[in-house]
Formats: sequence, C-alpha cells, structure tokens
Amino acid sequence: MPQGKPEAVPDDGLTTRERRRQPVLAVHTGQGKGKSTAAFGMALRAWNAGWPIVVYQFVKSPKWRVGEEAALRALGETGKGGTVTWHKMGEGWSWIQRSGTERDHAAEAAEGWAQVKRDLSAQAYRFYVLDEFTYPMKWGWVDVADVVATLRDRPGSQHVVVTGRDAHGDLVAAADLVTDMTKVKHPMDAGRKGQQGLEW
Amino acid sequence: MPQGKPEAVPDDGLTTRERRRQPVLAVHTGQGKGKSTAAFGMALRAWNAGWPIVVYQFVKSPKWRVGEEAALRALGETGKGGTVTWHKMGEGWSWIQRSGTERDHAAEAAEGWAQVKRDLSAQAYRFYVLDEFTYPMKWGWVDVADVVATLRDRPGSQHVVVTGRDAHGDLVAAADLVTDMTKVKHPMDAGRKGQQGLEW
Repeated sequence: MPQGKPEAVPDDGLTTRERRRQPVLAVHTGQGKGKSTAAFGMALRAWNAGWPIVVYQFVKSPKWRVGEEAALRALGETGKGGTVTWHKMGEGWSWIQRSGTERDHAAEAAEGWAQVKRDLSAQAYRFYVLDEFTYPMKWGWVDVADVVATLRDRPGSQHVVVTGRDAHGDLVAAADLVTDMTKVKHPMDAGRKGQQGLEW
Repeated sequence: MPQGKPEAVPDDGLTTRERRRQPVLAVHTGQGKGKSTAAFGMALRAWNAGWPIVVYQFVKSPKWRVGEEAALRALGETGKGGTVTWHKMGEGWSWIQRSGTERDHAAEAAEGWAQVKRDLSAQAYRFYVLDEFTYPMKWGWVDVADVVATLRDRPGSQHVVVTGRDAHGDLVAAADLVTDMTKVKHPMDAGRKGQQGLEW
C-alpha cells in the first residue's frame, strides 16, 4: 500500500529516499496456498517497473507452474516491461548440457543455487523468485549459512522472493518481509482434485 | 499442486471429472501481504487456460494496483490467452457516466456489486477477482446475505476470488478455499516506505 506510513523512523543514517530504494528479501512460507502465486503476482509489478526478472523453479516436476511460466514469458515478450527469464530444475537447468536422463536432485539444486549466486554477484536481474527454495535448504542440498549470507550481503538493489513451506529460521531472521500463508480451508479437504486454470 | 491426492472422496454423486470442474470460490484474507497479489497470480493461470478474466477493484484510490493492471491488460492484449477486463471503483466504474466529481463510496460499491451480479448471472466471465471486497461487506455497503447467496448459487463454472482483511464468517463458510495471509515481518515495521515495482 503506497499510502502506508511507517510506524517508526529508524536511526540508520539513511534518507527516506535511500531507505525506500533498499532491496527487499521476502519469504512466503506456511502450509496454505498462495506462496508462489503471490511471488508471481509481485512479478507483475516488477515487470511494469521495467525490471529484469528471473525465476528459479526448484521443483522436480516440469509440469508445475506451466500457466505462470507461459503468462510471464508472454509478458516478457511484449517488450513493454521488464524481461523474463525462467529456469526449471525439473527438466534440468537450461544452462547445463546433459547426456543421460539420470538426475540427482540434490546436485541439481546445488547447481541452481550456484547459478543464483553468480547472477546476484553480477547483478544480472532486479527481481528474483526462488520458487520452492525452502526445500533444498531444508533437505541439506544447499548450505543454509551460505544462502543466508549470500542473500543478506547481495550487492545493489536486487529484490529476492523465496517461497516454500518450513522456511528456515535463519532465512526468516534475515528477511525484510515474511508472510505465512495459513490454510483455513482447501477444496481437497472436500475430496476435490486440482484443476487446470486454477492449480496450474 | 496437480499431483495432490484428495484426503477423502465425498459422497456427492459426482464423478471425479465433474467434481474437478466445480467452480471454486476462494477467499484471501488476513493481516499479511499477498492477498490481492496471489489473486492476480491466479489470474496468470486463468489467462493461460484461455478464460475470460474480470477484476473488480473495490478500492478508493485509482493509483492502487497500477502494476498489476498494466501487466494483466498487456497479457490480455497479446491475444494468446484469456481476455482481461478491469473495473476500478476509485475512478468511478467504467460503465457509469458521471457529471460531477463528488463520490459516495457506499453507493459506488453497491453499483459495483450490482454489476458483478449481472455478470455472474450472464456468465460473462470465467475468472473473477473481487479485490478488497471484504470491506464493502464489512461496512454494510452491500448486503452480506445477498453476496453469500449470489456467490454460492452462481451458475455454470465461474471461479471467484475475494480478497481483503476481516472476511465475513458467512463468506468464509461458503468458500471452498480460504487462505489467511499472516504477517510475520514487514519492512514498514523497520521504518521503510513502499516502493514502486514492489508495492504497486
């Protein structure tokens, strides 16, 4: 809400303008729906601001997020806003050439994170979605201390949104904005299955 | 998650296919961020499914959601997915001609809801976002019983997402999917103001 008034002015030596431009690290966690969906919704604003956007999808299934991917890619292709780059772990990261079909998800996640680090260091994008990245952190596929330090100390004005359940406490502590999507009621409780257009 | 398994199969006489196609009424409520943002993220999937989308923005300020509006309108204009229609209360609903600048928000909200009813009755769209609609309900600008009955008994396969804090209990009871966006941490707590690209 642009009209929002901060509750207190911090004693950090920054002007409001400087503070306003500070990059945000956001975490969308919790058991409910909307964690990734809200991150892609934020990408709409980033696109409109003309920011280069990148999505790192740390999920196994290449079928996930096909609707979001198609829509954001189509937006990027309009040329009217920011560019959109989309990397999927589920079909092997696009920058890695593979001979076989065997996949080691732990190694793939680590490769994905290594690329994120390179991008952040190079300030390659302005808005990052690290989709479902809480799981590689939880499962020990990436080093939590390395992730937290890298995200906390990233250069420039790069905004990062991390999604997924069970966000690590150190990530939550380092984040500026943390929202817990809490499930109140879900159609699957009533025996419904997911449907195209709504769920993917 | 398309791979999700329902926890129980209901005794409602529907096949899985019929149940899968049932229209969903979703509510995004709570004090945290992401309620509207996740609704617009859902619109990306609806767009990719080719569904006609409409957004009713029940907010006073025409400056809100400019990024989301620009992005979703641009998507609609690509012609590759669903159409996008966007109505804003903050600058007077587009279908109403006004002579003066005086506005009665209660009357405007009621006019907006009357148009939603006409659209639902005509099955004019497949995916509806009633953005910030919990407030006109809370403030008595629309009749809660009328809203709940209309949404519950809407014809065809029309999906509706209602966003806003303090969702009425009767709306929650009627909804299929309810998520509470719970604020864990927010940059404004640290004295930051909203910034373009992230907040609007």
